[in-house]
Amino acid sequence: MSETIQATAEKIRKLQVQGARNVAIAAIKAIQTQAEQTKAKNKTQFLVELKEAQTIFYASRETEPLMRNAVRWIITQAQTAKTEKIGELSQTVSATSAKFLKKLDFSRERTAEIGAKRIKDGSVVFTHCHSSTVTRLLAKAKADGKNFKVVCTETRPAFQGRITAKELVYLGIDTEFIVDSAARTFIGDADMVIVGADAITSEGNVVNKIGSSGIAVLAHEARVPFYVVSELLKFDPETMKGECEKIEQRSPSEVWSEAPAKLSVRNPAFDVTPNRYIHGLVCEEGIIAPQTIVEVMRLRYPWVF
Amino acid sequence: MSETIQATAEKIRKLQVQGARNVAIAAIKAIQTQAEQTKAKNKTQFLVELKEAQTIFYASRETEPLMRNAVRWIITQAQTAKTEKIGELSQTVSATSAKFLKKLDFSRERTAEIGAKRIKDGSVVFTHCHSSTVTRLLAKAKADGKNFKVVCTETRPAFQGRITAKELVYLGIDTEFIVDSAARTFIGDADMVIVGADAITSEGNVVNKIGSSGIAVLAHEARVPFYVVSELLKFDPETMKGECEKIEQRSPSEVWSEAPAKLSVRNPAFDVTPNRYIHGLVCEEGIIAPQTIVEVMRLRYPWVF
Amino acid sequence: MSETIQATAEKIRKLQVQGARNVAIAAIKAIQTQAEQTKAKNKTQFLVELKEAQTIFYASRETEPLMRNAVRWIITQAQTAKTEKIGELSQTVSATSAKFLKKLDFSRERTAEIGAKRIKDGSVVFTHCHSSTVTRLLAKAKADGKNFKVVCTETRPAFQGRITAKELVYLGIDTEFIVDSAARTFIGDADMVIVGADAITSEGNVVNKIGSSGIAVLAHEARVPFYVVSELLKFDPETMKGECEKIEQRSPSEVWSEAPAKLSVRNPAFDVTPNRYIHGLVCEEGIIAPQTIVEVMRLRYPWVF
Amino acid sequence: MSETIQATAEKIRKLQVQGARNVAIAAIKAIQTQAEQTKAKNKTQFLVELKEAQTIFYASRETEPLMRNAVRWIITQAQTAKTEKIGELSQTVSATSAKFLKKLDFSRERTAEIGAKRIKDGSVVFTHCHSSTVTRLLAKAKADGKNFKVVCTETRPAFQGRITAKELVYLGIDTEFIVDSAARTFIGDADMVIVGADAITSEGNVVNKIGSSGIAVLAHEARVPFYVVSELLKFDPETMKGECEKIEQRSPSEVWSEAPAKLSVRNPAFDVTPNRYIHGLVCEEGIIAPQTIVEVMRLRYPWVF
Amino acid sequence: MSETIQATAEKIRKLQVQGARNVAIAAIKAIQTQAEQTKAKNKTQFLVELKEAQTIFYASRETEPLMRNAVRWIITQAQTAKTEKIGELSQTVSATSAKFLKKLDFSRERTAEIGAKRIKDGSVVFTHCHSSTVTRLLAKAKADGKNFKVVCTETRPAFQGRITAKELVYLGIDTEFIVDSAARTFIGDADMVIVGADAITSEGNVVNKIGSSGIAVLAHEARVPFYVVSELLKFDPETMKGECEKIEQRSPSEVWSEAPAKLSVRNPAFDVTPNRYIHGLVCEEGIIAPQTIVEVMRLRYPWVF
Amino acid sequence: MSETIQATAEKIRKLQVQGARNVAIAAIKAIQTQAEQTKAKNKTQFLVELKEAQTIFYASRETEPLMRNAVRWIITQAQTAKTEKIGELSQTVSATSAKFLKKLDFSRERTAEIGAKRIKDGSVVFTHCHSSTVTRLLAKAKADGKNFKVVCTETRPAFQGRITAKELVYLGIDTEFIVDSAARTFIGDADMVIVGADAITSEGNVVNKIGSSGIAVLAHEARVPFYVVSELLKFDPETMKGECEKIEQRSPSEVWSEAPAKLSVRNPAFDVTPNRYIHGLVCEEGIIAPQTIVEVMRLRYPWVF
Repeated sequence: MSETIQATAEKIRKLQVQGARNVAIAAIKAIQTQAEQTKAKNKTQFLVELKEAQTIFYASRETEPLMRNAVRWIITQAQTAKTEKIGELSQTVSATSAKFLKKLDFSRERTAEIGAKRIKDGSVVFTHCHSSTVTRLLAKAKADGKNFKVVCTETRPAFQGRITAKELVYLGIDTEFIVDSAARTFIGDADMVIVGADAITSEGNVVNKIGSSGIAVLAHEARVPFYVVSELLKFDPETMKGECEKIEQRSPSEVWSEAPAKLSVRNPAFDVTPNRYIHGLVCEEGIIAPQTIVEVMRLRYPWVF
Repeated sequence: MSETIQATAEKIRKLQVQGARNVAIAAIKAIQTQAEQTKAKNKTQFLVELKEAQTIFYASRETEPLMRNAVRWIITQAQTAKTEKIGELSQTVSATSAKFLKKLDFSRERTAEIGAKRIKDGSVVFTHCHSSTVTRLLAKAKADGKNFKVVCTETRPAFQGRITAKELVYLGIDTEFIVDSAARTFIGDADMVIVGADAITSEGNVVNKIGSSGIAVLAHEARVPFYVVSELLKFDPETMKGECEKIEQRSPSEVWSEAPAKLSVRNPAFDVTPNRYIHGLVCEEGIIAPQTIVEVMRLRYPWVF
Repeated sequence: MSETIQATAEKIRKLQVQGARNVAIAAIKAIQTQAEQTKAKNKTQFLVELKEAQTIFYASRETEPLMRNAVRWIITQAQTAKTEKIGELSQTVSATSAKFLKKLDFSRERTAEIGAKRIKDGSVVFTHCHSSTVTRLLAKAKADGKNFKVVCTETRPAFQGRITAKELVYLGIDTEFIVDSAARTFIGDADMVIVGADAITSEGNVVNKIGSSGIAVLAHEARVPFYVVSELLKFDPETMKGECEKIEQRSPSEVWSEAPAKLSVRNPAFDVTPNRYIHGLVCEEGIIAPQTIVEVMRLRYPWVF
Repeated sequence: MSETIQATAEKIRKLQVQGARNVAIAAIKAIQTQAEQTKAKNKTQFLVELKEAQTIFYASRETEPLMRNAVRWIITQAQTAKTEKIGELSQTVSATSAKFLKKLDFSRERTAEIGAKRIKDGSVVFTHCHSSTVTRLLAKAKADGKNFKVVCTETRPAFQGRITAKELVYLGIDTEFIVDSAARTFIGDADMVIVGADAITSEGNVVNKIGSSGIAVLAHEARVPFYVVSELLKFDPETMKGECEKIEQRSPSEVWSEAPAKLSVRNPAFDVTPNRYIHGLVCEEGIIAPQTIVEVMRLRYPWVF
Repeated sequence: MSETIQATAEKIRKLQVQGARNVAIAAIKAIQTQAEQTKAKNKTQFLVELKEAQTIFYASRETEPLMRNAVRWIITQAQTAKTEKIGELSQTVSATSAKFLKKLDFSRERTAEIGAKRIKDGSVVFTHCHSSTVTRLLAKAKADGKNFKVVCTETRPAFQGRITAKELVYLGIDTEFIVDSAARTFIGDADMVIVGADAITSEGNVVNKIGSSGIAVLAHEARVPFYVVSELLKFDPETMKGECEKIEQRSPSEVWSEAPAKLSVRNPAFDVTPNRYIHGLVCEEGIIAPQTIVEVMRLRYPWVF
Repeated sequence: MSETIQATAEKIRKLQVQGARNVAIAAIKAIQTQAEQTKAKNKTQFLVELKEAQTIFYASRETEPLMRNAVRWIITQAQTAKTEKIGELSQTVSATSAKFLKKLDFSRERTAEIGAKRIKDGSVVFTHCHSSTVTRLLAKAKADGKNFKVVCTETRPAFQGRITAKELVYLGIDTEFIVDSAARTFIGDADMVIVGADAITSEGNVVNKIGSSGIAVLAHEARVPFYVVSELLKFDPETMKGECEKIEQRSPSEVWSEAPAKLSVRNPAFDVTPNRYIHGLVCEEGIIAPQTIVEVMRLRYPWVF
């Protein structure tokens, strides 16, 4: 078994690698490395190695459809490659991986471009947590010469909102920073909400950082459109088959390191925003109704099913 | 001018005294002291001193109707006292103050007793921030032999939820602790929400710790009754006359002490929960519809108007 | 101990006497009888007898504020009667009881008159279960020369809707009869919903036959005003003090007499309709917002508190 | 029968006198005149004259509780006057009428003052139709040095919004003017809605210019508080007794003077806004929850019942 | 004309065969029989016979898209069969019918498997009426080792809920049984609602047993996800073309056999649940947003259009 | 440059040609004329001419996806025509244009047929503004022998509702005419709302005459289904790529020609109705959920993307 795979999976497990995107990239690179260093004697052995890597990565984190879809794709390509030669298979995995990484970059860029058009000059954008795609989108809108303000939550317990705030200030975007509980007070002044996604289910519901669904309800109450910005490959094909997205329960100490002994600290990492609260899903394909995610996936990424 | 008054007002201003109740108690005690140490030569001077104290205390914090109502009442009693003797006036202020403090204790005790009856055995109670009346209510329910669980938010930025959590754990109450953003995830399991109040407006809207109104919306979405527990004297008579409750904007450093230079950190201390989201107002008078607060005040505390 | 009291309480317990109104009447008459046949030697003994009767009746059924208020009132009158003579006390109880019964009739008549004005010619009224006040109201509207249609549910498990249907057909009112589950299908055609009440809480929530609150939600969804028609004395003063209205759990056999052995049949008699779903409370005082029930009670029936 | 009464009632009937306030003033002045010119020989005749005037005025327009309350009050004062002398009775009516007119002015002024405090600097106020009290309130806020913008609808069919627009522009208030159908497009930018009232029912529902209730629903959808500004005497005591507010159906030609022959043009003058959509009722008493209108009337104007 | 066809259609008409599934199976088997016993001399005659059977079956019940889709498919297969020989055509019909029946079984099994994954250990499932697919799904979840409770309504007037209850108790599933009107009282404790479907429209609305749409509204109010479990072939292609699903009006005697003479008993068999109340449609294809039913049908069953 | 193109674009700009349909037809005919009169020497020049026409037409009005889609299609056909001969290219444009116009007629006819089936005998239909497709649909339903009533708004500022009213009266349809503000008063009596569309976005939101979205909210409040009737080619492919539909701001004088000098008259022509308020989109393809518009376009008009 490849040490790279084990080591990478370990890092993912321990949250040393974080964010749907980074996790996917790490897994792809590890598989690339394994393929290059393979000692497999034939295609069968080569595929077994890949399958083992898949098993290990799938077990490393619960809610990572992007990584799973990436791994699934690379394996599919190797399986269907019309060669039995290890060198060529290794080459295929390598090329496929590189292509996937490029595709990821392209998806983010395309998504950011599309979404940036929805930012109006003089408007106020509300966001939650940190998403590199959301930052990219806002940077694009800024670069397009639009002036707008962003309200961003601190996003307890890990304060990812501070990363967002720093990035936005660095980009010269007028930014307001609030505690999570101030969402209802500030959402009324916003013209739109934009958040990222960790996973998208077959009904078009979105799994994202804890607090997102509450903000969606408040946006609905205040008639502020709530957009989700995400690569299509965050779609989780398992939900189609009935599986629920697992919601990771993280360490209590993230919330309160010196909590009283008998206190039960609950720390779910994500929540689920129902499709009816989502105004539009901005993805590389364009802006779509989230309910149609399955049809769009069938068209663009039929191999995920 | 009494030094006690100045010093106490200063402490209130600097948040060294916190919580509607503690602020009211501090102000009352300072007035009591001033009355005891008065150097006034006649009733007119005595009343002038009281009026000055009133002005100072009113200026010390924005949203403190309980303290203002307390001071208003003591002054009214002195003004209408049928004596011109300083000694007797001082005595009146002293007795009135003592009576008010007793009344405050009685109100909390009565409110806790009434509200405790609504806690059902085996139920889950959701709360936000810290309120001594809410803790008292839960303690009473526990003492009545009921088993129940409390879900309590950490309440950023000042983490008052930790005080609540510690008190509840100390009382032997099964407690779960979550970040504010996890409210929508956990509220579905709750049988009721209970929060305190900092002020109540004439329409029956409730000013309370930032985040309360968002939780009220989420409770409404999840069909969980949302109770406000409060002494009637948190009613702010100025709202009747058209004044809006001022929402204190606190220091950005409470939220993020090393925030980037150009980041605008917004830190409102309170928000307003509309009456239609409030299932019942639990007070010393009983459980009432918040819309009727003005009528109840007219009956019980006609002097506030 | 009076046999009449015991016997009547027994009948109430066994549901041989049903309906808030009938239960109250039975209890009043039993107390009247006891007072007439009393063997008490002095006022103290006389009052003890009354108190015992009160205890027995209170224990006979859980949700009967009208009966409790009746008993409470009669006892209060006896207690405050300025006489020590048994004969006069007995006379007081008798007169008071008669007066209460008259008052009950008057309240129903007045409530029916007021509510009948809201029935418009050519309209459709939706009702649930059986309430003699609702029937009286509809009879009054019919007698006033209005033509209207009533949609009435069968009201499982006891089919009280059949009683309503028979009464309405007898009155010559055009009546449609549906199963409870057809409520959403037919409510869209209705111009108003009218139901009775078993109890009213201090916040203005209404306890009524199981299914009422669901119909209120459906009426809200379809923008059809939902009226509750009730004597004010259905108000339960205990709710003011924090008590929840107990919801009687009736026999499973009412629902399914030959249910499978391990099947848990649940049969709650009532549910609670929140005040925000109630368009108006029609009572002897007029049509009021249910939120103000406490103020109206204080004005008209101060002795209940 | 007094000619003045007949002539004034005729003007009211023909809408030559319009607006709840103007109608009330005209009726009061006519009664004042009649009282001054009375040929009654004794108190009985004098009162008969008044009663006749009352009957005529009540019949002149359907939805005019303010005028009815005014007439009712004047008659009550004459009835209870402790004199039998015609001169003194005439004097009483005169003085009472003058007092009522003064009271009306005071109420408007007080209402405007209270409401003006709710207008925040830099805010946007949405209004519909024309109400002299609303204009007064906005003028007061402007005079208080606040800068704000008003969005006002044209208010078909009679274009009363144009009167409002002219008055606001004259006052130097920044005003935007839209067609009624643009309400949803502009309400999202508003910080509050303010409208007047023609009548208030016992449940706290408000009868006002057609279109008001739709705006209330849109304000609710957009979480914008909807205030009603009205003198308390617009309360209609008949609604308490079950009467529905009659909705005047005005001439089709107001809507389309050359409508095709067989087209049915419907032109209701008013609609009813349910209490749950009203954030607060601003009146001379202060800002109250509309649900409590009956209690407030009992306190301030007990004679209306 | 085949007697079998006539006889089977008659049974369907008289409700001797009930349930979308059973009706479809009966029709298929009758067509199979007819095809085997055909006296047609050539393909044209053979197809005429089939068309006649289709006409008869379509007329037998109003809301039976599954049966209609089945018949349509078999005929299509016969029409497009590349043979003119009667024997082979008969063989085709037979094989096609068998295949369809197998497909039906497979669909139910697959649907049950997928849906069963959504049942969480320790959860409460709410259901209404009887659906063999729902029972299968719950049986599967039980077999998977999950412990859960089911709340099931009695489903008046035909008490199909009793069939469900018996099946569940037999399966050893902890079951609670309630009257239909108790839905709002118990739905708050449920983690999900699962119902079957009789027909699905092109917008994704679901026709199911009367009461289903009301339960969907209550589930929405209580934030409980509402799932519909159905084979895709319940989709009705006619709705796409503008036809409304006909709602069968059944016999009044089902509701009240001894109803008063002039009473109008209304007994619609189904109601329509709007797509926005449906959390997900569980079908053999997976869990999808009901709005996309047309796209899914085009992919899997293009011949229905 | 073709004068026809310039002249037609000018007419479109000046609103001498109005209505999505008429604008598209005018543009197509102008291009047809240009193609017939072309002086292009080769295919390249011919295509340049077409591209110039496209640019001019695109610039003539902001919200005209139907016209843009028409122009786009004709150009695509010319581009892909397998010929270099001008005569044949001209012929292609001509034929393509004719085909498009025919297609438009067919789409309207098909849409009207489908939608007409949803009009039930004895029902009330609510509509807003003027749409030839809606009129056609109603005419079809009338021709099918159905009796129904239409409530139609006047549709300020341009009174297009009067055109609708005249057409309906001419068709013998029972029609009621109201001001826009009376929508909430009359919508409760309606069985359905039908409006046209100017543009459809990729999420399935509908751009239509100002006021439509407010009516949609009121229909939702009153549980009345809201249908949009539109040719699929009103879909705007640019929204998929992130563009927002531009909302044309028309001349203030349409609203008030003698408005006071400093009054800001705002006159947006359209608003946007969110997909969740739309019960169904009736188009030539059938009745679909608006969320799926992109999938349907991909199937039927793949060239628009």
